[in-house]
Amino acid sequence: MADPATCPPLTRASVQAAHDLIKPYIHLTPLLTCTTLSRIASTPRDLKGTRWEGRVPARPRMDLVFKCENFQKVGAFKARGAFHAVERLKQEPGFDPSTGVVTHSSGNHAQALALAARENGIKAYIVMPEISAKPKIAATKGYGAEVIFSGSTSVEREKVTKEVMERTGARLVPPYDHPDIILGQGTLGLEMQGQAREVFKGEGLDGVLAPCGGGGMLSGVALSCEGTGIRVWGCEPEKDGADDAKRGYYSGKRVESVSTLTIADGLRTPLGLYPWGIIYERRLVGGMYSVSEEEIKMALRLVYERMKIVIEPSSAVSLAIALYNEDFRKMVEEEGGEKGWKIGCVFTGGNVSLEALGELFGTMGEGLEEAAAKDQIGE
Amino acid sequence: MADPATCPPLTRASVQAAHDLIKPYIHLTPLLTCTTLSRIASTPRDLKGTRWEGRVPARPRMDLVFKCENFQKVGAFKARGAFHAVERLKQEPGFDPSTGVVTHSSGNHAQALALAARENGIKAYIVMPEISAKPKIAATKGYGAEVIFSGSTSVEREKVTKEVMERTGARLVPPYDHPDIILGQGTLGLEMQGQAREVFKGEGLDGVLAPCGGGGMLSGVALSCEGTGIRVWGCEPEKDGADDAKRGYYSGKRVESVSTLTIADGLRTPLGLYPWGIIYERRLVGGMYSVSEEEIKMALRLVYERMKIVIEPSSAVSLAIALYNEDFRKMVEEEGGEKGWKIGCVFTGGNVSLEALGELFGTMGEGLEEAAAKDQIGE
Repeated sequence: MADPATCPPLTRASVQAAHDLIKPYIHLTPLLTCTTLSRIASTPRDLKGTRWEGRVPARPRMDLVFKCENFQKVGAFKARGAFHAVERLKQEPGFDPSTGVVTHSSGNHAQALALAARENGIKAYIVMPEISAKPKIAATKGYGAEVIFSGSTSVEREKVTKEVMERTGARLVPPYDHPDIILGQGTLGLEMQGQAREVFKGEGLDGVLAPCGGGGMLSGVALSCEGTGIRVWGCEPEKDGADDAKRGYYSGKRVESVSTLTIADGLRTPLGLYPWGIIYERRLVGGMYSVSEEEIKMALRLVYERMKIVIEPSSAVSLAIALYNEDFRKMVEEEGGEKGWKIGCVFTGGNVSLEALGELFGTMGEGLEEAAAKDQIGE
Repeated sequence: MADPATCPPLTRASVQAAHDLIKPYIHLTPLLTCTTLSRIASTPRDLKGTRWEGRVPARPRMDLVFKCENFQKVGAFKARGAFHAVERLKQEPGFDPSTGVVTHSSGNHAQALALAARENGIKAYIVMPEISAKPKIAATKGYGAEVIFSGSTSVEREKVTKEVMERTGARLVPPYDHPDIILGQGTLGLEMQGQAREVFKGEGLDGVLAPCGGGGMLSGVALSCEGTGIRVWGCEPEKDGADDAKRGYYSGKRVESVSTLTIADGLRTPLGLYPWGIIYERRLVGGMYSVSEEEIKMALRLVYERMKIVIEPSSAVSLAIALYNEDFRKMVEEEGGEKGWKIGCVFTGGNVSLEALGELFGTMGEGLEEAAAKDQIGE
């Protein structure tokens, strides 16, 4: 990874420069609309039985659009940061492709780095826990990376990663807490801005809902919106304290560790230091919101049933905030008024196994099926 | 339904006229590409353990494109036929919208007719078995139709349908065996032809693989290709004799009843009389092919994992033929030669419950997971 001291400043212009660098390598993913989901978002909820019971339901007006990074290379936005990190390394005097790059990840970042390295003739080492799912190991190897196994705790993984670095000289490319990664992920925000003006015939977005795990993508998107007047909000699951960024944001102290088994498995990591600087210290994110596991599942179901696209549970967290978080909805009602707001939801990726989906929905209760059936009234 | 005697002739020009009529009401669904799936289709299969074991694997060259009717209104191509049938009724002197239309269906045709009727201010009666899934009943009611319950045998459903017709004067709109329905479904074939020329920069399709249940869509697509030089092939599941159209096609005698529980539940019906005339008697379909349940599942999995879109099992049958039917693949190798063929696969719809998906893939064997993992090497 390039030395952070030599990185471009964390500004909108640097996101634009990152976009110019990676554009030849990534997909311009579609920004999709869905009349039914915008209609549901703009309909007051029945709050009976929810934690908001007793409140007057909010009456927001939202036009939702969806940035579909599930159609991105490797099936997730992580391709953006990885390609940008690799491009920046290539520009570094003396960087030797044969010594390569290394990361520890069993998720989308692993495949993204493996692909970015392969496309640039760079050796890639990926440290994965021995217990990783076989298809993930096969996929990472399929992209030409050398997979090195470790234990599954972060201490064990970091130890093995360090050994690889010492043995091979490979450069570490971390998953989110680095300026080059942040600038790369932020490019999806730039694309959304242009695509939304096409969808809305000249009018731009009023705001963006972006999921937050380590915060690389959320902070990059916030940079891409700086000075445009577009609001940016962070979206988290709340199970087992997965809403660490929200808790940090409202207490003024970054939460440094998280241990959660939320189904939004891309969002289990604590907020990184660079993202914290952008999200909290520079206040480029206007608010943080969270949702329950059931709300994530309901949003996920709506996307499968109404939009007919495959997204991973982490993706659904942005839509779940728009549909189910009454604090967010009340704010949109009050500030967006009669005209309402045009809101972009980021779908982070589409890498979910069919077995995992089967488990998620095979166990869904009758009540939820009924709720889903009530929504079956659209286009 | 319009009297068949007054229907337009079953020609390509009539499909074009149908398209002009329904274009304002339907979505122009995308024709998608997928590099990985074309690559897999163009790679010789390992035939060990398959029913083709011992053969030399075929080496076809295929560029696949996918007509995504899962993104059509009501989530299936059935919207086309229903809107066309309703438009034709509206043109009939003396047709009274308040007497309405009726059909018996618990599937995509029910929702398609309900929507087409609502959009035209026409009353719709849908006869559904009492045991239909609640979300399907809710969805049909959601489109404004009056749902009338019957027993689940075809005799019981037809009896109730007849009662509705006698009581209300509503006109019957059958799901596939009628010229207006066939011409409506065929419009997707016309769209594919134009879209393929865009995708392939001026070059057109060499052939189309279309699933076949009652045969309304397959025969409509065949009409849309008449005189263009584009080959059309029918695709069926083979479980419990679901390959009735294939057996009829090669024996010269239409099979009039089928009883199968194939997972491709849109393809459980026997071939209709009008479709038979087009497919077999006029020989507008060049061949019929079938695949096993496991092959359908493998194709379905690839679409979810690689294309990230939601399709119903019936949709996957077209892709499964391209990937797994060695008779078809051998034919493409021999006739398509070095240059290969550009083949359009019809994805019929995307209406599958997440619970059903969970059941399908929750029970998938280890061998299949391994096979799927081997395919994880794409873009």
